[in-house]
Amino acid sequence: MADKKPVNHIRLTSHPDGETPGVPIRWGDPEPLRRGPVVATLTEPAHRNVIGTHSGAYAVYRALAVAAGKLPQDHRADLKNTSPAAQIGPYPAWNDPERIVSLDPWGAIAPQVFRAYTEQDIDFRPTIAVTKAHINLPELRDAVAAGRLKPDGDLLQANGDIKVTKAAVEPVWFLPGIAKRFGMTESALRRGLFEHTGGMFPELITRPDLHVFLPPIGGLTLYAFGRVEALADRDTPLAVRVHDECNGSDVFGSDICTCRPYLAHGIEECVRTAQGGGSGLIVYLRKEGRALGEVTKFLVYNARKRQEGGDSAATYFQRTECVAGVQDMRFQELMPDVLHWLGITRIHRFVSMSDMKHDAITRSGIEILERVPIPEDLIPADAKVEMEAKKAAGYFTKGPVADAATLAQVKGRGLDV
Amino acid sequence: MADKKPVNHIRLTSHPDGETPGVPIRWGDPEPLRRGPVVATLTEPAHRNVIGTHSGAYAVYRALAVAAGKLPQDHRADLKNTSPAAQIGPYPAWNDPERIVSLDPWGAIAPQVFRAYTEQDIDFRPTIAVTKAHINLPELRDAVAAGRLKPDGDLLQANGDIKVTKAAVEPVWFLPGIAKRFGMTESALRRGLFEHTGGMFPELITRPDLHVFLPPIGGLTLYAFGRVEALADRDTPLAVRVHDECNGSDVFGSDICTCRPYLAHGIEECVRTAQGGGSGLIVYLRKEGRALGEVTKFLVYNARKRQEGGDSAATYFQRTECVAGVQDMRFQELMPDVLHWLGITRIHRFVSMSDMKHDAITRSGIEILERVPIPEDLIPADAKVEMEAKKAAGYFTKGPVADAATLAQVKGRGLDV
Repeated sequence: MADKKPVNHIRLTSHPDGETPGVPIRWGDPEPLRRGPVVATLTEPAHRNVIGTHSGAYAVYRALAVAAGKLPQDHRADLKNTSPAAQIGPYPAWNDPERIVSLDPWGAIAPQVFRAYTEQDIDFRPTIAVTKAHINLPELRDAVAAGRLKPDGDLLQANGDIKVTKAAVEPVWFLPGIAKRFGMTESALRRGLFEHTGGMFPELITRPDLHVFLPPIGGLTLYAFGRVEALADRDTPLAVRVHDECNGSDVFGSDICTCRPYLAHGIEECVRTAQGGGSGLIVYLRKEGRALGEVTKFLVYNARKRQEGGDSAATYFQRTECVAGVQDMRFQELMPDVLHWLGITRIHRFVSMSDMKHDAITRSGIEILERVPIPEDLIPADAKVEMEAKKAAGYFTKGPVADAATLAQVKGRGLDV
Repeated sequence: MADKKPVNHIRLTSHPDGETPGVPIRWGDPEPLRRGPVVATLTEPAHRNVIGTHSGAYAVYRALAVAAGKLPQDHRADLKNTSPAAQIGPYPAWNDPERIVSLDPWGAIAPQVFRAYTEQDIDFRPTIAVTKAHINLPELRDAVAAGRLKPDGDLLQANGDIKVTKAAVEPVWFLPGIAKRFGMTESALRRGLFEHTGGMFPELITRPDLHVFLPPIGGLTLYAFGRVEALADRDTPLAVRVHDECNGSDVFGSDICTCRPYLAHGIEECVRTAQGGGSGLIVYLRKEGRALGEVTKFLVYNARKRQEGGDSAATYFQRTECVAGVQDMRFQELMPDVLHWLGITRIHRFVSMSDMKHDAITRSGIEILERVPIPEDLIPADAKVEMEAKKAAGYFTKGPVADAATLAQVKGRGLDV
């Protein structure tokens, strides 16, 4: 370790003068040792080459652990045996500084490809972890019982266990690329992120030399079915669902939306496609309540169900806009990055009706051959308000789209029923 | 609105000199107008009386929306029809500045009780939202089919729908109370939170006059079964499960842990207790992977399953400690706050085996009469490693606790099986 002098004064922010990081990051450089590792650890501040730190929002808990004396501030992770359980990439998209801007494509294999930096005592950590698991969902057991899926003894077992490769991905934002994606200057992005979070991370302003930011937000998890390397083969059938978190439905089965039923249907499509020699992918993104958070979501539920005339497909979007100022804050523009990380160039069956997701993916250069709507019998009665409103607003459907008069007839349950 | 001059310079932080907030917060004051609202909005910076802003980690998405020109920075929420769908409190614990320190007890009814401030053009928002819903889980339908639960046509309907009152709660930290809870000074807490997040929120350092912090972390959701007001009646039977998020099991049914099966069992206990004239409560806390985040969790899975001798109950905790430096970062010390917010003073059936949760709750002054372990037949085979390790480390059980030799025999599946 470098010599450290005991420092007791508090630095409110840092400045680039004379403290250019030892390890520059050249985003998109195809040669890892030139690209350089993301050094976001706090064990040796002088080595850091990013703004923010690891674990997204959980960085706050880590700070609490250090403050409470439970975790030594110089703890370095022992990464023995933690390397990816399946190899992913490198793929050509990794070398395009504009194609992947919200995650680090080298994040899973950083300890391997950047070993030369470890030998220089640089402490960096993987921002992606890849493991293997068995999952078992009641809805998939039902699909077996109903004969829609047949156990094959390997991918899908007789007890309903499904073998998956899964990965957790931390957000790593390359600010020039994020800014370009949204058509703004990097300095406008930096200033916006700083000022409209209530002053989070002054280094967004004072360190224009640092172009990588690890925002304290949730990341994503992906579940791959079948051979992971087949995801990148455009001639192997691929089923994909991109799913934004909805705790109320995904975990608790709330009947006001279609989130869990559609997710379970997506997993069923993935298993079926993988059993047929293809592969499947679920991407689960931590964007609760359209990235407005659950407090806003529940406020909107009350406003919807109490409005004059009751909950109605005709006024579905307005209620969110009244409370939140926007209908949606999910920024699907960043979502395709993970597909490019996996080397995907073609999706054969896209298990989503969202026009925003579809358009973001195809605009990023990935082909979508077929769109798979949720089966009608999986839509809870109270979720028809959302479903009809979304179809009228551009969601994909093979069926009719309601006109204004019909939308006004699609009603949800009241609050006290 | 107050006159605003166009300001174009960037302020890196603020200082207390001459800008004492117009609305002080007197945490724990029983009179709401003296307590004062939490003003965390950014529409009028001079009115703010806290550090940080609303929506936890989703504040970053909100900032992106403003930067991208999708959301006007002066948007004020239209809160019409959003007030709580059930009345909760006030309860005596709301008046104790040390009893509730991690949420704002007035957060759900802020627009009502602080109306006088709205009339002074102060823009503040609720930090808690209370609504009503129907939930429907396959495991609960199975409980009906198996005759363990009987539909009553009201709380539990023939199709498996369960009526709940639910609330989403944003974190609101009263820093002196948090510091006291962990036995440190407020200034050590502030400095730790600032420095070990990589320099988040310099106001933690420069605004010692602001004692309330809205950290950018996930909050919690609660699901109440039966009469919400009965939660506070110590003579009405109450079943409670306090559940820490585990996306891999809660949503996807991973078999490496017992999270979803135990959660479903907890809901079943809540329904049964409510049907018998009592009430039930599930608290769901966003603390993925013991608040270490999912990347760390998956790294640990790999280390567990690849270690010499394979995954074993004998070495279960060490693998987390190698990677993360601690076994756990959930800080159960803050968790009882939500129980006090609900007026709970006695839990009749506590559906959790965690000694950390049990001890935190009873130390906070709430009585626990009975602890309900997970039924043996709900434990997936691969989850026995975790279960036996935790029982040996102090988890509640009515059965035998494995000795070191037996723990070494409890083995999990390998990565590639």
